Amino acid sequence: MCELLGICANLPVTATLSLDVLARHGGDTGPHKDGWGIGYYQGAAIRLMKEAEAAAGSAWLRFIRDHELQSPIILSHIRKATRGARTLANTQPFQRELGGRMHLFAHNGNLAGIDDLALAGANRFRPVGETDSEIAFCELMRRLAVLWDGADGVPALERRHEVIAAFAAEIAPMGPANFLYADGDALFAHGNRCTQAGSGEIRSPGLHWLMRQCGADSGTGINGVALGGERVEVALVASVPLSDEPWQPLAEGAVLCLRAGALAAF
Amino acid sequence: MCELLGICANLPVTATLSLDVLARHGGDTGPHKDGWGIGYYQGAAIRLMKEAEAAAGSAWLRFIRDHELQSPIILSHIRKATRGARTLANTQPFQRELGGRMHLFAHNGNLAGIDDLALAGANRFRPVGETDSEIAFCELMRRLAVLWDGADGVPALERRHEVIAAFAAEIAPMGPANFLYADGDALFAHGNRCTQAGSGEIRSPGLHWLMRQCGADSGTGINGVALGGERVEVALVASVPLSDEPWQPLAEGAVLCLRAGALAAF
Repeated sequence: MCELLGICANLPVTATLSLDVLARHGGDTGPHKDGWGIGYYQGAAIRLMKEAEAAAGSAWLRFIRDHELQSPIILSHIRKATRGARTLANTQPFQRELGGRMHLFAHNGNLAGIDDLALAGANRFRPVGETDSEIAFCELMRRLAVLWDGADGVPALERRHEVIAAFAAEIAPMGPANFLYADGDALFAHGNRCTQAGSGEIRSPGLHWLMRQCGADSGTGINGVALGGERVEVALVASVPLSDEPWQPLAEGAVLCLRAGALAAF
Repeated sequence: MCELLGICANLPVTATLSLDVLARHGGDTGPHKDGWGIGYYQGAAIRLMKEAEAAAGSAWLRFIRDHELQSPIILSHIRKATRGARTLANTQPFQRELGGRMHLFAHNGNLAGIDDLALAGANRFRPVGETDSEIAFCELMRRLAVLWDGADGVPALERRHEVIAAFAAEIAPMGPANFLYADGDALFAHGNRCTQAGSGEIRSPGLHWLMRQCGADSGTGINGVALGGERVEVALVASVPLSDEPWQPLAEGAVLCLRAGALAAF
């Protein structure tokens, strides 16, 4: 099973502290030795770095950490290969352009039957690698394209949430379908802890989330972000809690929708 | 005007020496201070790194250089902004997925009228930034999609070359239309030295290219690549010659087609 981390804030923040913990899980204290990736939104574009190597000990990840990139939406993944070779093409997060912006997706779990679902309709989005996770992303993009194609701006959040929630409900029975998806405007998260898959029950930690608010005084509180006096609101979603704070398990089957560091209300 | 570099080899090679020269042009000896990017193919995926900062003095580019990434197809761009703000979204090369592989594009020049050409047909590929270069790429992808959609493998090289050559001929009169385009299988290059654009003549160095063959003894000859006894064939394409070797100007209006370090013959 892989590990996920998503950060959504009302201002650009760093992921430094969370990355430290995640990197240790990636081949040091954890078994996720098969790759890592991290994407930072800059407007509608993404600065995405990945490597098909263990996160722990990666000179690249250390370099990224030390240079404290900031972004209002950050998405990271560390991989323990279950399907697909240890290649860059199979390393997450995956990105695609749709509607004039880059979309980012990361998943952990095994999706038995995702190939059949994806084959049901012709899809202009095609996987570059061999993972079930990328097949799921391509199928999600196909469905979201109905909203984005020809749209002048960003489609209504509620419409996007509907499509994503319906998709999550469809893939949840296939196996642990923990995923993070972002379109640069919002971050969506779906988790399920364990499920009955083809080959029996597969256990998964699901997803956990946390809301943080910090004033100007908390300095390095939020992942090392330097605060300029503004109130910073940050939502974090991760496979396992990355700090001693009161992380909450994400409700089974729910699709969390975060925008500007806050839970979106419809 | 920006600067381009493309490398196509029969084996994975580094870009170290060429990057050194290019980086100096990017804000040191040259005026290209507005961003840089470099993409290394790994199979059908691309390790793409870019930054909306001057290449000269960039800690990131120095880090990349020092870690000697290797790839059979490498594409790089350093930017002098002419249209579009200094943002990541406007930094080249640009990438898109088509037919289950990533495609890479970089352009220098100004394309007066490219907006009209792109508006002529509905396009699922939409620019993330505001540059004429990305609009051109989206239009090229739209035309190439006819070959790639539904195709089981890589379409015939000759068919791809036809589409790209027709596209190049169409945009050449719009302004200097120097571009590099790769699909992971082949690298295509189009150059024109100067042209009559809307606002008068714009001078451009066009593109220059060079073929190198090295045996096991030449050691650091090819951009610092360590040779394992195999004969390495490398084709390089760049805006200006990057070494004292006999670089040739690319024939006006020609679309060079390189595969595995050799000139493709149809």
